[in-house]
Amino acid sequence: MSEEKKYKIDACFSPHLYPIYEDKESIVVVIDVFRATSAICVAFHYGADKIIPVAKVEEAAEYKKQGFLAGAERDAIKLEGFDFGNSPYDYMGDHVKGKTIALTTTNGTQAIEAARQAYKVVIGSFLNIDVLCQWLVKQNRNVLLLCSGWKNKFNLEDSLYAGAVTQKMLELSDDFKLGDGCLALKYLFVQAQHEPIKYLVHASHKERLSRLGLKKDIKFCLTPNAAPVIPVLEGKYLVKLQD
Amino acid sequence: MSEEKKYKIDACFSPHLYPIYEDKESIVVVIDVFRATSAICVAFHYGADKIIPVAKVEEAAEYKKQGFLAGAERDAIKLEGFDFGNSPYDYMGDHVKGKTIALTTTNGTQAIEAARQAYKVVIGSFLNIDVLCQWLVKQNRNVLLLCSGWKNKFNLEDSLYAGAVTQKMLELSDDFKLGDGCLALKYLFVQAQHEPIKYLVHASHKERLSRLGLKKDIKFCLTPNAAPVIPVLEGKYLVKLQD
Repeated sequence: MSEEKKYKIDACFSPHLYPIYEDKESIVVVIDVFRATSAICVAFHYGADKIIPVAKVEEAAEYKKQGFLAGAERDAIKLEGFDFGNSPYDYMGDHVKGKTIALTTTNGTQAIEAARQAYKVVIGSFLNIDVLCQWLVKQNRNVLLLCSGWKNKFNLEDSLYAGAVTQKMLELSDDFKLGDGCLALKYLFVQAQHEPIKYLVHASHKERLSRLGLKKDIKFCLTPNAAPVIPVLEGKYLVKLQD
Repeated sequence: MSEEKKYKIDACFSPHLYPIYEDKESIVVVIDVFRATSAICVAFHYGADKIIPVAKVEEAAEYKKQGFLAGAERDAIKLEGFDFGNSPYDYMGDHVKGKTIALTTTNGTQAIEAARQAYKVVIGSFLNIDVLCQWLVKQNRNVLLLCSGWKNKFNLEDSLYAGAVTQKMLELSDDFKLGDGCLALKYLFVQAQHEPIKYLVHASHKERLSRLGLKKDIKFCLTPNAAPVIPVLEGKYLVKLQD
């Protein structure tokens, strides 16, 4: 049956696995629900002009020296000397409007770095899920959902989101067949969707964030369509996709 | 709550990710449900003395030249000039009794190769699930479920089995907390357990095997406890674990 489908959605659970899944013709959706890709969506929703995702702290520090705003997070903590961490709340307000912001995070910006050569890289989070899925189904292309995970390990929140995207894309279009990763995640999402916080209760990174007092961030990052913009990579910049 | 648990079960979805999950103190369960680890369990159940898992076809051919029985499979097909492929049916009967067999397969023997330095490597399949889980919970150690996948990609059948092992170990013992991979798989297994074949209906490797007329293999490989032995790696050999 799946042979009739024109395009494929697959999921890759770690940036370290990306070379195995790489396919220069696919659109790659980079996912880091807690919290980098949520923060990126928020920044553009509040009018940021560009984000420069970088893998290393030193690169972000260099941009900061040059006068850019810069965000840097490692192990869920904002680094000293930077303007922002990776909490979405750091990027809410007029202070980001029209600005270019350099950003490095433990997982999300590493995943962007891994996928840099893809046909197109877009940023996914629950905050932009509907506009993103509507856009994805119109592109007539294979889609690879790249979960940032935690230090290259599988994580529960990014895979839950990948399952949500899979489910939503199937509702919007008949054109997609699913790779094994997406098949598994679709099952998972269908089971977890009505109580995502309960589903994530033992997720290791949620526990980590809860210990750090970041429950407000967790709840916000699970809010569908709170920042309905599509960040897309153009050269070294993330910019807001124009309609 | 999970802090109270003594040991951890985690799942690694690809041999390529094994270095990220590696932990010299864990017991590694190598999983290749369709079909290498099922075939290995069958061989020992029928009295094979040793299996020499090798990564390369040339190595298996070398053993064959030296007079050993040898199995070799690539892309689900038995290679010319070898005694066996990786169908469990190839290893049923008196012809394996007391023999040492060299074996190379697309995925399973690659996963064994990746995990060779682990504290202990055992072989898991539905065919030995109960004895394996009973043994695992008695070892008082972390357990890593290493899914062989398909050419380093996530696959549905190995992850389903890893979910089954997770669920069964939790039923047998309160000592284990779960990594994110196992948390996801436990949900999956609970949902799929009553109709595993239906769950796997769109799995890519099941489709591949079905096209090759191997439905009988698929059904057999999903039969719990049909070959209740625990193969364990000792040096370069897999041997049957003695009680």
